[in-house]
Amino acid sequence: MSDAAAPGRADTAHAPDKVVTACLVIIGNEILSGRTRDVNLQFLATELNKIGVRMMECRVVPDIEEVIVDTVNEVRRKFDYVFTTGGIGPTHDDITADAIARAFGVGISENAEAVDRLTRYYADPALFTAPRRRMARIPHGGSLVDNPVSVAPGFRMENVFTFAGVPMIVEGMFHSMKHLLVGGRPLLSRTIRCSQPEGFIAGPLGAVQQRHPETEIGSYPAFRQGKPSVSLIIRGTDPAKLQSAFDDLFKVLVELKGEPEEVPVS
Amino acid sequence: MSDAAAPGRADTAHAPDKVVTACLVIIGNEILSGRTRDVNLQFLATELNKIGVRMMECRVVPDIEEVIVDTVNEVRRKFDYVFTTGGIGPTHDDITADAIARAFGVGISENAEAVDRLTRYYADPALFTAPRRRMARIPHGGSLVDNPVSVAPGFRMENVFTFAGVPMIVEGMFHSMKHLLVGGRPLLSRTIRCSQPEGFIAGPLGAVQQRHPETEIGSYPAFRQGKPSVSLIIRGTDPAKLQSAFDDLFKVLVELKGEPEEVPVS
Repeated sequence: MSDAAAPGRADTAHAPDKVVTACLVIIGNEILSGRTRDVNLQFLATELNKIGVRMMECRVVPDIEEVIVDTVNEVRRKFDYVFTTGGIGPTHDDITADAIARAFGVGISENAEAVDRLTRYYADPALFTAPRRRMARIPHGGSLVDNPVSVAPGFRMENVFTFAGVPMIVEGMFHSMKHLLVGGRPLLSRTIRCSQPEGFIAGPLGAVQQRHPETEIGSYPAFRQGKPSVSLIIRGTDPAKLQSAFDDLFKVLVELKGEPEEVPVS
Repeated sequence: MSDAAAPGRADTAHAPDKVVTACLVIIGNEILSGRTRDVNLQFLATELNKIGVRMMECRVVPDIEEVIVDTVNEVRRKFDYVFTTGGIGPTHDDITADAIARAFGVGISENAEAVDRLTRYYADPALFTAPRRRMARIPHGGSLVDNPVSVAPGFRMENVFTFAGVPMIVEGMFHSMKHLLVGGRPLLSRTIRCSQPEGFIAGPLGAVQQRHPETEIGSYPAFRQGKPSVSLIIRGTDPAKLQSAFDDLFKVLVELKGEPEEVPVS
């Protein structure tokens, strides 16, 4: 990609205090049928947050052009960045590139640079089949997103980045383009595990949240070795405020005999 | 639950040829931050399909009341059934019940049956804390969804079913209420694994799809032991048409030296 990415909602320079948002559109019947469990949301959410872009919504939609078009057109106006995964391969059910072209009201045809990359990759013309050549079709005005795994590129249209669906390719495409994203302040987090169930700590926990309105405290119950336990996650962009909320919550949990322990970030 | 569930879009009796649709709304910052990988979509999609309800969309939204209200109000009019997961526990960040009440324009208060269940479950009044009592708050007009794991109920408002987020509880709640859903014909599927890459089979594959317009053939590339492979999934509601498409595709793949083998349903 040659041109710089610019957030869709506000075409401004780096604004460290602005919350920069993203939405992921997962395109694929295989996710909605239950055949495949998506892993791309977790990857992209985690990686985007590291560079100060916050995943605010995700939609899983079927391989129906109308639905893809409507969804992309709705979310590209609502969020700074939109990522789509799935549906850019060589088969008849790969309809994402056409849907994106329609969403932007532009045509679609073979991109010379994409043809060139694929021609070099497949080398033997017998391997560069017509269906593979279809993967060089890019909506007009789109710029290519590199695919370090299997060459067939993704592409960018304004604030919308279209990736393949295979997780290994999603990772490669993301790392090849992430320097183009303009992030805000990353959301930092600290996690405390607590042995008391939510029902015993909820009152004091709510009070801690009220004392620290600029951090956000989430409470996530789980079962550990058959016993209920709770993970408390404190999130915020200001390291000092995060530390202050952490210290307050930790002290409260000690008083509640919650045996708090910090869980290191994995 | 005492009353019968009725699809939202069309309040009709069992209509076997109708496609009955569902949408899942996953409520939770922990999914959007990347901390937690959702597993409820795959479970619900798979189980719903067994009873003839097709998952058509899924949205992951943050713990922001406005967003939950708008999302639920949009999708409950678009799909026959809506499921929400997450945000019905005892802590300050559990805002789903209030959001659903607001979406339906009704009040919310303690439900006598829910209080009764929780009172019996916790037995000792010292255990039945005020935060736990909060879990008995149900939007007016809602009917309870049983929770065989930890008692605190989910609830149903018209075609919207609100579940907890913990996977074990989602499973329990679903199995306790699924008999109330009115499904259409289940989408059947057959899977063939093929050793030829998509780029070699895409043309003939598209032709098979065209010969069998009432089945839907999806092509899913993956890497197996470092080599590209493809899973082809044929889906349809008519067993004879599914078989016919399967036979046609299998034969085509043999001709293409794709070494087709059927993958049994796991």
